[in-house]
Amino acid sequence: MVWTSGWRLASAVSNAGGLGLIGSGSMHPDVLLEHIRRCKAATSRPFGVNIPLLYPEIDRQMKTVMDEGVEIIFTSAGNPGTWTKILKNSGCKVVHVVGSSKFARKAEDAGCDAVVAEGFEAGGHNGREETTSMVLIPAVCQTVRIPVIAAGGISDGRQMMAAMVLGAEGVQIGSRFVASLEASSHPKFKEQVIRAGEGDTKLMMKQLTPVRLLKNHFFLEVEKAEQRGAGREELLELLGRGRAKKGMFEGDLEEGELEIGQVSALIREILPAGDIVANTWNEFTQALEQPFTKITN
Amino acid sequence: MVWTSGWRLASAVSNAGGLGLIGSGSMHPDVLLEHIRRCKAATSRPFGVNIPLLYPEIDRQMKTVMDEGVEIIFTSAGNPGTWTKILKNSGCKVVHVVGSSKFARKAEDAGCDAVVAEGFEAGGHNGREETTSMVLIPAVCQTVRIPVIAAGGISDGRQMMAAMVLGAEGVQIGSRFVASLEASSHPKFKEQVIRAGEGDTKLMMKQLTPVRLLKNHFFLEVEKAEQRGAGREELLELLGRGRAKKGMFEGDLEEGELEIGQVSALIREILPAGDIVANTWNEFTQALEQPFTKITN
Repeated sequence: MVWTSGWRLASAVSNAGGLGLIGSGSMHPDVLLEHIRRCKAATSRPFGVNIPLLYPEIDRQMKTVMDEGVEIIFTSAGNPGTWTKILKNSGCKVVHVVGSSKFARKAEDAGCDAVVAEGFEAGGHNGREETTSMVLIPAVCQTVRIPVIAAGGISDGRQMMAAMVLGAEGVQIGSRFVASLEASSHPKFKEQVIRAGEGDTKLMMKQLTPVRLLKNHFFLEVEKAEQRGAGREELLELLGRGRAKKGMFEGDLEEGELEIGQVSALIREILPAGDIVANTWNEFTQALEQPFTKITN
Repeated sequence: MVWTSGWRLASAVSNAGGLGLIGSGSMHPDVLLEHIRRCKAATSRPFGVNIPLLYPEIDRQMKTVMDEGVEIIFTSAGNPGTWTKILKNSGCKVVHVVGSSKFARKAEDAGCDAVVAEGFEAGGHNGREETTSMVLIPAVCQTVRIPVIAAGGISDGRQMMAAMVLGAEGVQIGSRFVASLEASSHPKFKEQVIRAGEGDTKLMMKQLTPVRLLKNHFFLEVEKAEQRGAGREELLELLGRGRAKKGMFEGDLEEGELEIGQVSALIREILPAGDIVANTWNEFTQALEQPFTKITN
């Protein structure tokens, strides 16, 4: 949720009864500080911050969230061994994002309070094993005793119920909130998300860090390079710097990196984040009453 | 289910209350005839035959099932336009396997009675769009009015319930029955399936027909070739002839092609097919009573 989930989106989700998360991966430490303070001002409910552990200035990000007393930290993209204990000692709840049971166990061993099991269908950076939510959720639930939050392929209350039937105790929803009024992503990117259909995203850059991208000119360049057997160096050069910002924040739909999940194929309108939370909850409770009603247009 | 689902497995599934399917993709027409006749002798319940539409002697396969009065035909791997009407005129119910909403609509337009929506996590040959069951099931259910049967990532009653919550009216289970006593696959292959873990299968050969394979020496050869940018010709030569038979039927675990779904990571014992059907049904009804009980070992 880089370039997407700032204080506006996080506070709107929290105010609607969800747990809003600020995505700090695209924020300099001073920007993160501002988002945390604004989020506190905009909601009296709990919210959290997601911190990718490979972030270059990780020490400063961590100091910021602890100094500001953020109580819920989601960590991702890295080893939870180093920071989990420090955050826990500072009074935080720590949730780590994983793409396999092996990493889920490591997160539990590191002292995490919960894990997010993120399936292959999820947007953005993803695991190498390509295990989908339908298989990953029960696999992770069998492996750890801490609560499992499902992510990947979830944009509505039906999918939320399916994930919970598979053993999850909650869900993390990303792509659906990209197409929200409060997301800080560029309006052109939001429009592209609601236009996306099946097969319009693909997991790319597997030699670097795998990332699910929406098809565009940049995507096709990467695909061509990968098909002719390009190595890491060539891919890094092609990627260059600032691609994600260019695409998702500045709205360059052809040359930018557009990160979104497969579930974009099911997202058809941009809505206020609070409506998305309310709709999801309503669909979930309806699915509980009538689990086997066919979804029709 | 080539080299796996003969009359023994199909009749065992049907006798247990499921709809057993004979997988004809690996059978010469005279072999298929024998399997149909033996299946009729072994069960008085309905069973079906799966026919890949790209099968070289497709006319003879189709004549065989119609002459024998098989009432339920599952078609896959090809265009349902040609054969659906002929089969329907002969009194068959026709179900076509698809990996996208676009092909689901084509199947409905061709007159099919139902579709199987097969997610990316499924074993064997698969669609190019890589859409996973969590996204594909609701997408296909929104698109067609005919019943949708979910496949891919389903090995137990919990996953069956999740698929039906997403809108499916039934499930097609493959990999779980590879690890059954009655499967005709080689015992060594069955043992390998129950040893498989997360990340041990991958969708390969995307330049030819994408196929999900279990990792072994042959797999690594294909992976190396693909990483250096090998073309169709080179891949075809590497594949050679009879790889699937060598692996799944003859039990050559290193040089053979081993087709299995991601869900193999959750399969831990070889069971009689009837027990698999009964367990699945029990898990499904339990999940219906207590949908949110965590799965634990």
